[in-house]
Amino acid sequence: MSAPHPQLDAQGNLKHFLTIDGLSRELLVEILDRAEGFLGVAQQAVKKVPLCRGKVIANLFFENSTRTRTTFELAAKRLSADVLNLNISTSATAKGETLLDTLRNLEAMHVDMFVVRHATSGAAHFIAAHANPHVSIINAGDGRHSHPTQGMLDMFTIRRHKPDFTRLRVAIVGDILHSRVARSQILALTTLGVPEIRVIAPRTLLPSHVEDAFGVRAFHDLREGIRDVDVVIMLRIQRERMNSALLPSEHEYFYLFGLTEKRLSVACPDAIVMHPGPINRGVEMDSQVADGSRSVILEQVSNGIAIRMAVMSMCLGTQNLNSQREYTA
Amino acid sequence: MSAPHPQLDAQGNLKHFLTIDGLSRELLVEILDRAEGFLGVAQQAVKKVPLCRGKVIANLFFENSTRTRTTFELAAKRLSADVLNLNISTSATAKGETLLDTLRNLEAMHVDMFVVRHATSGAAHFIAAHANPHVSIINAGDGRHSHPTQGMLDMFTIRRHKPDFTRLRVAIVGDILHSRVARSQILALTTLGVPEIRVIAPRTLLPSHVEDAFGVRAFHDLREGIRDVDVVIMLRIQRERMNSALLPSEHEYFYLFGLTEKRLSVACPDAIVMHPGPINRGVEMDSQVADGSRSVILEQVSNGIAIRMAVMSMCLGTQNLNSQREYTA
Amino acid sequence: MSAPHPQLDAQGNLKHFLTIDGLSRELLVEILDRAEGFLGVAQQAVKKVPLCRGKVIANLFFENSTRTRTTFELAAKRLSADVLNLNISTSATAKGETLLDTLRNLEAMHVDMFVVRHATSGAAHFIAAHANPHVSIINAGDGRHSHPTQGMLDMFTIRRHKPDFTRLRVAIVGDILHSRVARSQILALTTLGVPEIRVIAPRTLLPSHVEDAFGVRAFHDLREGIRDVDVVIMLRIQRERMNSALLPSEHEYFYLFGLTEKRLSVACPDAIVMHPGPINRGVEMDSQVADGSRSVILEQVSNGIAIRMAVMSMCLGTQNLNSQREYTA
Repeated sequence: MSAPHPQLDAQGNLKHFLTIDGLSRELLVEILDRAEGFLGVAQQAVKKVPLCRGKVIANLFFENSTRTRTTFELAAKRLSADVLNLNISTSATAKGETLLDTLRNLEAMHVDMFVVRHATSGAAHFIAAHANPHVSIINAGDGRHSHPTQGMLDMFTIRRHKPDFTRLRVAIVGDILHSRVARSQILALTTLGVPEIRVIAPRTLLPSHVEDAFGVRAFHDLREGIRDVDVVIMLRIQRERMNSALLPSEHEYFYLFGLTEKRLSVACPDAIVMHPGPINRGVEMDSQVADGSRSVILEQVSNGIAIRMAVMSMCLGTQNLNSQREYTA
Repeated sequence: MSAPHPQLDAQGNLKHFLTIDGLSRELLVEILDRAEGFLGVAQQAVKKVPLCRGKVIANLFFENSTRTRTTFELAAKRLSADVLNLNISTSATAKGETLLDTLRNLEAMHVDMFVVRHATSGAAHFIAAHANPHVSIINAGDGRHSHPTQGMLDMFTIRRHKPDFTRLRVAIVGDILHSRVARSQILALTTLGVPEIRVIAPRTLLPSHVEDAFGVRAFHDLREGIRDVDVVIMLRIQRERMNSALLPSEHEYFYLFGLTEKRLSVACPDAIVMHPGPINRGVEMDSQVADGSRSVILEQVSNGIAIRMAVMSMCLGTQNLNSQREYTA
Repeated sequence: MSAPHPQLDAQGNLKHFLTIDGLSRELLVEILDRAEGFLGVAQQAVKKVPLCRGKVIANLFFENSTRTRTTFELAAKRLSADVLNLNISTSATAKGETLLDTLRNLEAMHVDMFVVRHATSGAAHFIAAHANPHVSIINAGDGRHSHPTQGMLDMFTIRRHKPDFTRLRVAIVGDILHSRVARSQILALTTLGVPEIRVIAPRTLLPSHVEDAFGVRAFHDLREGIRDVDVVIMLRIQRERMNSALLPSEHEYFYLFGLTEKRLSVACPDAIVMHPGPINRGVEMDSQVADGSRSVILEQVSNGIAIRMAVMSMCLGTQNLNSQREYTA
């Protein structure tokens, strides 16, 4: 990135949320603390707060993902914002309009925030770099690059079980090479002070020089890699990879890298198991683990709404808008 | 069904709405009475009540039906709920996720109610059997099995014209064999005490042993079947059936079973004519009947919103949530 | 049209908004003035007014247009209405239901307003002629006939820069023959008293007898046509036309009719440049003009929301519904 803080405004407040890269430990903790406050909203009889009432949030999903779009839509509605779901493939870009013209038009309609998902790395940065000052951009996944709300919801989930990041061993298992989720997790774990981050994968699914480039320890053997860890994060295997030369069969992948209760026994006794979903049961892990007592996978989903509410309301600068008075309504 | 009351909670209140089967006369009357109260909402300047504000209702339509989805969406919005429309075919199940994992994820997002439409009989029951206790399921049509909100809106429409069910003769005309609507109607009519229910259809479109199995009288001649009835319910003919061996041509069907003013003349003078829509004009009935003074087909549509508001608010247990105070707002 | 004022109710108030044709100068000015009041809503912290709370507005788009639908959806939400987006191609009409039955059903659901876009000229008039008295219709574009909200947002944009219509020269450039936008603009400009309206196009893209039929001056040379005009309205070229015999290549069209800074130099020094969007850059105009200081193209987009809020609230007769009290909330 060219600018020193492309995500912060002149006062150092969050304006866009594009990547974990370059954000301070203090800011990450502020996001986690704010999300903590939003967790309770889901327990209220009226599951809404009026923080973003009258704001318009547009989901610009160039890459289809009903699940991720739904979590952003729910987070926006819980903040009382209005939501536009734009199916980009059928919209004006199909008529030959450029991406920037589409952007300018939505800005002219006084949309306040774009939630962008795109198959190309850097797409959300590009849009943020060209957006008008009154618009905020949230990266909902760009190519292999970044998926920062997923990274933060994972940190949030870890912190609720293991409050002190500075004493943790965390292992990330799976297709590190293609994973924007893993990149965001590693950046967040590092910033929050986790002393030991391990990545576990077949050699074909690790970036070259991963240890130096990411500041992690690499393992090619699952049992060895998860020994004594506090957190095991399983990544989703894209089945497309099976057809390429990168991966053997699903069966063989599970045999080598699939998580079972037996294999998990070498981790810390109170280790938690995470997965960004959707799970391929019998590939990344078996159902005993997925549905077992150490799995926090469904908590991750719930926490994802709270984290997205936190990031959205911070970017929209609405943290103080009558929040005290109306919060209890 | 295995459990004695899969739709009721421990206090006997409606928790899910999956089928008319097993529900008491008292409960059906409670639904009808509650819907009566909601009819007036559509006449208000502000057509909303705050009963379900902050609740999230997700439409899970595995089988496409814009019309039915729209009525549930309108009912939910009139109750001030937030609505999620999930296109299941493009969602995570397409990525290989199991139906139960999709369900668990939506539950973790604190969705309060699923409105389920599925081509397979029993799908809504399956989901209800596996859902977390805080979630309610409404069956919006499953295979040939059940379409209980349609059944209840038909009862509601009948009662507004013929208040005493115990004195009625009701005829249902058409494809009884494949109709979830007919099954729900027959169960509701029986429970509400209708002494004479007739089904009128070609032999190929009646279930075997229909009289014993359903407690109805079967007719194969329209004129004979509708003689002296108070209510004529026409079912929709699926044009796909014409291509199978089950039905002759549309023309021949109309000639034998199509409703005309002339044929209707043998019914009671104040008989009403119903149809779940959409009508195939010139197949099930001619336009003179469809648009005539005895047709209550459009009332059925209006009543459908009120019935769905009634069932949704009962299942969500929000009947007393400030209702008195805010109702007049 | 058969009735003298198919768009007005007995008191002369706007009931439908189908065409500029037949509307008085006073009514057009009332729309513009009301839109002026709505412009400020987009600047508020909470970008909403409660004028249409509890009203249901259904977008009936038989012709796909994400951009236009989005502007109506935003306008409706800013008025606090509930919005239904109906994908007509997948709805009941696909099941063989007639358009009028679909209409009757939506009326029975107590939808208050239909926003109709259709490829056939007269579609919105047809629906308005058959709709129940409680329903309002807004034409969002019908065939080559009319696109009156586009026409009015263009008038609104002109008036904000050139307040006195009676002293203007306005040129419309492009495919006049197929343009519903141009028809609406010419009617509005004429009604508002613009003394000189010019149309500039190749002969193949002008209606026959355009000067007499529309009361305009026709030009076939861009330079000659825009000399001394105050307003230049560029129309969108449909790329489909290139494949027919009506138009040469995009390159040749730009060479003859494309707007450049150089060509614009013969217009008035403070002339404004307009385009309904989406722009084909390098066909109708180059980027220097599109993004230049005389372009008001993005203002048109913002103004479109205000004009649609004005027309919607006038048709729904909600101008006095607590507006004074709640407006400032």
